[in-house]
Amino acid sequence: MRNITARLTVSAVAVLFLAALMAGSTFAGNNPIDEKWWPSEFGPDDRAGATNYITPESRIAAASLIKQGKVALLGMPYHLRTPLFPGRLLSITIPGGGGPTHNLAWSGESFRQTFMDELFTAQIGQVGTQFDALSHPMIRVEGREADGWKDGNYFYNRVRLEDVGTPYGIKDVGVENVGSFFTRGILIDMVALKGGNLAKGYVITLDDYKAALKAQGIDDAQQGNVVLIRTGWNDLWRGNLEKSQEQAIADNNEFNSGEPGVAPEVCDHLAERKISMIGMDNWGIEPYDFAKIPPSQITDWGHCHANLVTRRGIYIFENLDLKQVGEDKAYEVLFAWAPLKIVGATGSPGNPIAAY
Amino acid sequence: MRNITARLTVSAVAVLFLAALMAGSTFAGNNPIDEKWWPSEFGPDDRAGATNYITPESRIAAASLIKQGKVALLGMPYHLRTPLFPGRLLSITIPGGGGPTHNLAWSGESFRQTFMDELFTAQIGQVGTQFDALSHPMIRVEGREADGWKDGNYFYNRVRLEDVGTPYGIKDVGVENVGSFFTRGILIDMVALKGGNLAKGYVITLDDYKAALKAQGIDDAQQGNVVLIRTGWNDLWRGNLEKSQEQAIADNNEFNSGEPGVAPEVCDHLAERKISMIGMDNWGIEPYDFAKIPPSQITDWGHCHANLVTRRGIYIFENLDLKQVGEDKAYEVLFAWAPLKIVGATGSPGNPIAAY
Amino acid sequence: MRNITARLTVSAVAVLFLAALMAGSTFAGNNPIDEKWWPSEFGPDDRAGATNYITPESRIAAASLIKQGKVALLGMPYHLRTPLFPGRLLSITIPGGGGPTHNLAWSGESFRQTFMDELFTAQIGQVGTQFDALSHPMIRVEGREADGWKDGNYFYNRVRLEDVGTPYGIKDVGVENVGSFFTRGILIDMVALKGGNLAKGYVITLDDYKAALKAQGIDDAQQGNVVLIRTGWNDLWRGNLEKSQEQAIADNNEFNSGEPGVAPEVCDHLAERKISMIGMDNWGIEPYDFAKIPPSQITDWGHCHANLVTRRGIYIFENLDLKQVGEDKAYEVLFAWAPLKIVGATGSPGNPIAAY
Amino acid sequence: MRNITARLTVSAVAVLFLAALMAGSTFAGNNPIDEKWWPSEFGPDDRAGATNYITPESRIAAASLIKQGKVALLGMPYHLRTPLFPGRLLSITIPGGGGPTHNLAWSGESFRQTFMDELFTAQIGQVGTQFDALSHPMIRVEGREADGWKDGNYFYNRVRLEDVGTPYGIKDVGVENVGSFFTRGILIDMVALKGGNLAKGYVITLDDYKAALKAQGIDDAQQGNVVLIRTGWNDLWRGNLEKSQEQAIADNNEFNSGEPGVAPEVCDHLAERKISMIGMDNWGIEPYDFAKIPPSQITDWGHCHANLVTRRGIYIFENLDLKQVGEDKAYEVLFAWAPLKIVGATGSPGNPIAAY
Repeated sequence: MRNITARLTVSAVAVLFLAALMAGSTFAGNNPIDEKWWPSEFGPDDRAGATNYITPESRIAAASLIKQGKVALLGMPYHLRTPLFPGRLLSITIPGGGGPTHNLAWSGESFRQTFMDELFTAQIGQVGTQFDALSHPMIRVEGREADGWKDGNYFYNRVRLEDVGTPYGIKDVGVENVGSFFTRGILIDMVALKGGNLAKGYVITLDDYKAALKAQGIDDAQQGNVVLIRTGWNDLWRGNLEKSQEQAIADNNEFNSGEPGVAPEVCDHLAERKISMIGMDNWGIEPYDFAKIPPSQITDWGHCHANLVTRRGIYIFENLDLKQVGEDKAYEVLFAWAPLKIVGATGSPGNPIAAY
Repeated sequence: MRNITARLTVSAVAVLFLAALMAGSTFAGNNPIDEKWWPSEFGPDDRAGATNYITPESRIAAASLIKQGKVALLGMPYHLRTPLFPGRLLSITIPGGGGPTHNLAWSGESFRQTFMDELFTAQIGQVGTQFDALSHPMIRVEGREADGWKDGNYFYNRVRLEDVGTPYGIKDVGVENVGSFFTRGILIDMVALKGGNLAKGYVITLDDYKAALKAQGIDDAQQGNVVLIRTGWNDLWRGNLEKSQEQAIADNNEFNSGEPGVAPEVCDHLAERKISMIGMDNWGIEPYDFAKIPPSQITDWGHCHANLVTRRGIYIFENLDLKQVGEDKAYEVLFAWAPLKIVGATGSPGNPIAAY
Repeated sequence: MRNITARLTVSAVAVLFLAALMAGSTFAGNNPIDEKWWPSEFGPDDRAGATNYITPESRIAAASLIKQGKVALLGMPYHLRTPLFPGRLLSITIPGGGGPTHNLAWSGESFRQTFMDELFTAQIGQVGTQFDALSHPMIRVEGREADGWKDGNYFYNRVRLEDVGTPYGIKDVGVENVGSFFTRGILIDMVALKGGNLAKGYVITLDDYKAALKAQGIDDAQQGNVVLIRTGWNDLWRGNLEKSQEQAIADNNEFNSGEPGVAPEVCDHLAERKISMIGMDNWGIEPYDFAKIPPSQITDWGHCHANLVTRRGIYIFENLDLKQVGEDKAYEVLFAWAPLKIVGATGSPGNPIAAY
Repeated sequence: MRNITARLTVSAVAVLFLAALMAGSTFAGNNPIDEKWWPSEFGPDDRAGATNYITPESRIAAASLIKQGKVALLGMPYHLRTPLFPGRLLSITIPGGGGPTHNLAWSGESFRQTFMDELFTAQIGQVGTQFDALSHPMIRVEGREADGWKDGNYFYNRVRLEDVGTPYGIKDVGVENVGSFFTRGILIDMVALKGGNLAKGYVITLDDYKAALKAQGIDDAQQGNVVLIRTGWNDLWRGNLEKSQEQAIADNNEFNSGEPGVAPEVCDHLAERKISMIGMDNWGIEPYDFAKIPPSQITDWGHCHANLVTRRGIYIFENLDLKQVGEDKAYEVLFAWAPLKIVGATGSPGNPIAAY
């Protein structure tokens, strides 16, 4: 934790992100009116989404995947050099005022019991390793009242922000409703398949996905599974605390300047497989290179967020650490994790366990 | 999440806690000089503590405890009515300014993709369901330089706060060093044994502990196990968001005014069994009734915190939700959880999985 | 600062506030459509409001009011026992981690220079002594598109929240646009007039106002003046840090359960006098008693906030400390203060100077 | 406030600051033992420091300096592009969750009254325009017990951090004890004297100071005065919100990479003149260029902080905006300001008024 005295921030290129996105590309296939996505297959009142796919049987089967008795922790460390999306912050301080946070004294003794606290401030569900709850992404609808859509921002199952948003939490679809992921996890190791970390903007196609399955000798995702896709992109900020500050800033800027990611066809395939979650080791799962206009080879940029989370209740986990499972060739694991029940929050930090 | 507009705080009786503790009782058996507790059995440089007890074999064995394919989530919800120790805070707000937190626009379409964030501020490792890392409790030593102890506050393995504390994190013994708990968990259901929730100040004895094991028909804790002890005390703030604000305040005050807890002999027994963690459904595991002077029948108040965490590296998990595992008679479970890797933090929030 | 370890919060009765307000009273005279209030008299593009009334001449005249060379500070202390509106928080911690926040060392010397910081979190413009900027109160308009009003929340000069709100600040009408108050301040000492602190719910009428002017022997407010009205209500939380925690909680609850305040006719009179600001020693300037239904004798509850700030750009300063100016009979003073330029904030904390 | 979505941070060169300071220079003349500085001239129990120098007579005299009826505001704006010392943060968000922060409804009407809040988190006394209270700088003393100094960190009047520091505020010497500055302010406009902004590392000598007085035709500082010294250094981050993000980052880095500042002899002179405060438009009043080793031409780096604040109770105000007073040739002004009474804080933000 040497030299962690400065907060590192994202590159200016991220500003281009918004500018580019607003400049002119077409978001082709996802018109919320043209496609039926409500009610969800779990009913109009469902607020848990794709964790409903996980059954007692699949939990028992997942536990049987443990052969070596080994675990990998899939959370990256949270610290002052975590790369952040513009506008977000991550602060940790240790209240003391010159001594411990708390003192308890016992008389007649030469010692006391003392305690330390920490004060943490962050967009806790949206920094570093982050799980997107159903209360994070929305589809904004305007001018479709004739089709039965009031103007507004719509979460999963047509829950409207304007109806459930409060200054102190999102009602109804907050992360406290998610439940847990105790299920088979499969790793798609693109780093192994391609012989190295993927480049910025690289689009992982369905062919890539199937080639990885074949190379790894595992079956495709089953209902309720968690699909982990390793790109190597998080290596850019791995070990940030041990770097010079200049290097850490430069690496964070590069990290935020784009990412390799999955093609819409992969997300559609996974949706058909009825997985419970996709998890990746990049910041936003979709491919971008913000130095280019348009910033992606694919035109349907937000497809995965919109189609997986908002339309189907399938969750997304970003900035996972998939290095150890990759190096251990842990292609089938028990994935065990539940988000923090922060009432009304839009996501959760995490440190999931992969056991194998 | 109706009416969560006010922050609830602990009763004034907690102030008595400090006053009473400083007034005169003797902390009998825990003189840090008289007993040898350094280096730890894992060596002087160990920073992980009792997670070292958990082995590949014990992980495999733990996974085999899953029979029904059921999970219970052991985290309580975090919200503005969470009871807090004096001085601590828990805040969640939703940045918006009249609309979504983030907007992404696509031209040529009548809609946008939008996103919500939350801003969270708390003593994140020490509010609500909370895991105590080795960087939380210390033993203050003064005037023992002749015995080789510099004045100061000592963590596990004789790491001194004055050497590792920084304004932005505790070096060396921060929660990022803990690793994971993927191991057999046993439940000691005192509520079932006694036919109801324990009373404030009730001291759980070793006889109680053994009686529960017998009544439940399970073996005692083994090396690396997590021992969960249910008292029912957390029921006081269960459902706080659905109560009137007056009722929630009153219940939080009662919750903070004391608690049933474990006797020192139980902690010593568990230390001998080499468990990795004790977890309870109260705020501090040790028994208190702050309306009384002294506030406990036992004189050795901080025994469990000092002897388990600081001296042996055995972790403590507070404010767990043990109601469902109790009602399900899930006496042997796979306990699967890892703390957030918040570098330099003194603990972690959590929502552990018990699978059975 | 003894025993400031617990955060005090407002009484549950404040919840009644919202409930009662929504239950049925009529907000009679303030229909935003029926009365013309846009553009403001300073033009449609003005963003500074009533500080425009203050001229070089009036500043020079105000400075001439200083006779004794005495100053009174009109800010209440900010601390963990400040009464807060439900949902708001005020936190101060001292980052240290066992020692100073910062260390600078010089070699060859037996000492270092060290520094302390504090970390502060609050709705900074809306806790304790608080100045309401034009970006705080709005009038919500719905269903009046035919009259030229898009649905939305309107600030001063018809600036619409939906157009200027961002997650990181309110554009256009943020507190950074206010300028300064360096002008004649007059004190209306209702405590002196009535021989004691006003009771909860007391309505200060225009007759009261004029009687105070007469009793005090001062001229009515002139253009650009700051009008300070003392009720004594803030005495409830004066000295909170020296009280027992129970007493402080009880007093804060009483403070939040209502307040004496000004009648709409007083605000209308002051608007005609073209003052720049009204400042009071209560939390919201308007009279309430939340134990009663309706909570006020007057039916036009939010009249002053809507008519002064939103419609005319005349500012409001709440929770001032007017005790010393009252006791000093400082009825005419130089009021010197400018809000913090927190870009996009809705208000400002403050500690204004009254010189006389 | 366009594009303020990213938080800007200081350059890595600031890390060199600490490294260089610890590397070997001698802090020559300020041994706390060799020079008598306790009790202060206001007595051993004084906690207000040099505001004691300000008298009723000097206040009246200061008010007579107002000739034009003009005011300048000396605070810089606080925003997400404010340059920060490493480790500090400044965050503002607008709680909404899709709409206003608060809603009050009236029945029978087509509208509501609504309100916005902001949530602010910062080392509030030590970011941007910042006033250093007596609780900010300390002198660390070790190994001088024979001379009557217990080991520890000493504030003004020999108040020891270890005795008054708490996790929730600094007792005894917190900023709430300061009082107010309503006094003559003089401007030393080095920009006018030198024909442009001073260069990084420039040392303002006593000759410079006297030359400025002469060129401006004003008398030297008198007892209780505030001395404002303009360097132009703050121009580096002026207008940051209107710049590209890259430019703002680069300018903040340059701003933090050093600064022009005052020589020790100037501070000693001002101490002899018994001023109440020195205020400048740079981040730390003393001269540095962190690209050089040593980073200053003067060997006595922290002289002004130690000698003014800690030894004499003379305050320091950093990051003031002195451009307008410079351009208006407002060399003698009424300086009117009081810090926020944040109990236990180490400083205060501010927006002081200069009237002339």
